Amino acid sequence: DSKLKIFSLNSNEELAKDIAAAVGTKLGKCSVTSFSDGEIQINIEESIRGCDVFVVQSTSTPVNENLMELLIMVDALKRASAKTINIVMPYYGYARQDRKARAREPITAKLIANLLETAGATRVITLDLHAPQIQGFFDILIDHLRGVPIIAEYFIAKNFNPDEIVIVSPDHGGVTRTRKLAERLKAPIAIIDKRRPKPNVAEIMNIVGSVEGKTAILIDDIIDTAGTITLAANALMESGAKDVYASCTHPVLSGPAIERINNSPIKELIVTNSIALSEEKKGGKIVELSVANLLAEAIIRVYEEQSVSMLFD
Amino acid sequence: DSKLKIFSLNSNEELAKDIAAAVGTKLGKCSVTSFSDGEIQINIEESIRGCDVFVVQSTSTPVNENLMELLIMVDALKRASAKTINIVMPYYGYARQDRKARAREPITAKLIANLLETAGATRVITLDLHAPQIQGFFDILIDHLRGVPIIAEYFIAKNFNPDEIVIVSPDHGGVTRTRKLAERLKAPIAIIDKRRPKPNVAEIMNIVGSVEGKTAILIDDIIDTAGTITLAANALMESGAKDVYASCTHPVLSGPAIERINNSPIKELIVTNSIALSEEKKGGKIVELSVANLLAEAIIRVYEEQSVSMLFD
Ligand SMILES: Nc1ncnc2c1ncn2[C@@H]1O[C@H](COP(=O)(O)O)[C@@H](O)[C@H]1O
Ligand SMILES: Nc1ncnc2c1ncn2[C@@H]1O[C@H](COP(=O)(O)O)[C@@H](O)[C@H]1O
Repeated sequence: DSKLKIFSLNSNEELAKDIAAAVGTKLGKCSVTSFSDGEIQINIEESIRGCDVFVVQSTSTPVNENLMELLIMVDALKRASAKTINIVMPYYGYARQDRKARAREPITAKLIANLLETAGATRVITLDLHAPQIQGFFDILIDHLRGVPIIAEYFIAKNFNPDEIVIVSPDHGGVTRTRKLAERLKAPIAIIDKRRPKPNVAEIMNIVGSVEGKTAILIDDIIDTAGTITLAANALMESGAKDVYASCTHPVLSGPAIERINNSPIKELIVTNSIALSEEKKGGKIVELSVANLLAEAIIRVYEEQSVSMLFD
Repeated sequence: DSKLKIFSLNSNEELAKDIAAAVGTKLGKCSVTSFSDGEIQINIEESIRGCDVFVVQSTSTPVNENLMELLIMVDALKRASAKTINIVMPYYGYARQDRKARAREPITAKLIANLLETAGATRVITLDLHAPQIQGFFDILIDHLRGVPIIAEYFIAKNFNPDEIVIVSPDHGGVTRTRKLAERLKAPIAIIDKRRPKPNVAEIMNIVGSVEGKTAILIDDIIDTAGTITLAANALMESGAKDVYASCTHPVLSGPAIERINNSPIKELIVTNSIALSEEKKGGKIVELSVANLLAEAIIRVYEEQSVSMLFD
């Protein structure tokens, strides 16, 4: 029987520790540092020969550093005779560059998939891809987990009366996700009909569905500069919502995000730890839910599946 | 007949402009910026369909940013139907991670070669690889140029008496390069017999060859933290050298490098612009020679070769 090993790189050490604890093990020993010129130096400090290795790393900011750490780690694991190299990537960076929206654009989300495979990854476990189509960018197996159940649990614990809440999608792309949350909370949905004039700038049009007098719960996959979500919150309040909560799986929260959220009518922002929050971002209106158990379950399932398939090889 | 286009990314814009001028063209239009969260955004602003495209980018500091810019650009060029995608990489970052020196180390120089091919590069033009073996890491064509002739020209212009100079290799690995410079200057060589206790720290042993009363010219491929080269300069002066010059192709010059050079007996440090020097680093003892003409010649040669081979296809 092969052994399960979990390693953390630099993007999400806390989460990785929690995952390892939930799996019932400890993180593998490795050091990930930089040479004086900024080149990444990785040393794996225990044997992983013949092991099923899981590497926890989100390609969140600094995205290029985190991605290169991951690629170099996968290269090192491959050369050290790992049996399988499973990437646990709670946040998949560059996912919004998933198509040629204009002539001569790259499709960076596909490039990343190819780079991971080239380095030697044998499987990817990820969470709420910006577009589910990105699964098809991989020729290796990919497990695509969902954050909605975790976010739903949080709101279920608030014991809202289902008649008094409405789950709101900030755009048309997020309606499926919104409906899934609404089903769990037995609540109706509303949709914000929005046009975005250019990247990182958002504009709100009108609300499809009834929000008057209700507690509105916005849900998105990514909150980046928070332009979309705060304008949505304003539009909801102007349309007579009583309160506005916002939630997302991936708190990118770049640039003016925190300021915008603080100045918005949003009461609480519910996020997961798929992206580690810096100390300055923690607290305030932000409530952080853990995806450690979800990812630990996925790791155990993948590990058992791989062990079983070995028996039949 | 296909068209030649040269693009610059962010590592070496000045050099790229000079290369384009030497080739007799202008740089292609593209914008390479970042989204708010730090993800790279590239827009190629002119058609390159059916063109022979040359992209100038060194993977110098910030190495991971510069590498990702390059990979994303290559992806965009490929999807925009470039005929060939030729990478002009005056400095090849991660070249020192070219072998497993210890167990479970990555071979990042090979990983980089694989990543460039995966993205879609069809050819690489580079300069003074830290190990010439890196050429064999590629399955695509690679042109490996040498900086020695340019450095030699500079010293030839000084009209030293060949009897009064000695060309010195700071370690055993650089003897071939040293001999090539010595041949051009008709001078003898010496070798510093050195042990390096750990990375970025250097220790000098003794000098093989005669340096007494002579002007010593040190030559290396990379000067990074300048530990090796300044200790070599000290050792040369202690052994009775009259003067010490130092030269290298790639001025990485990280961490304490500039301070060490300023405090050393080195009279002048001759480098090339394979890595762009920041304003703070320019001047002082540093003399910068241009590789623009060398790279321009290589580009023209590759372009003509590709056009000719097209005639015979
Ligand atoms: N890192 C990023 N930050 C902001 N906008 C982005 C980023 N990456 C891609 N985009 C833009 O977002 C759009 C995709 O978003 P969406 O329509 O929500 O799928 C693309 O057309 C890109 O121009
Ligand atoms: N970016 C870097 N900065 C300093 N040392 C490095 C770097 N990359 C690799 N090395 C080390 O340098 C050694 C290779 O140098 P060399 O013996 O000159 O080929 C390797 O054993 C690495 O440990």
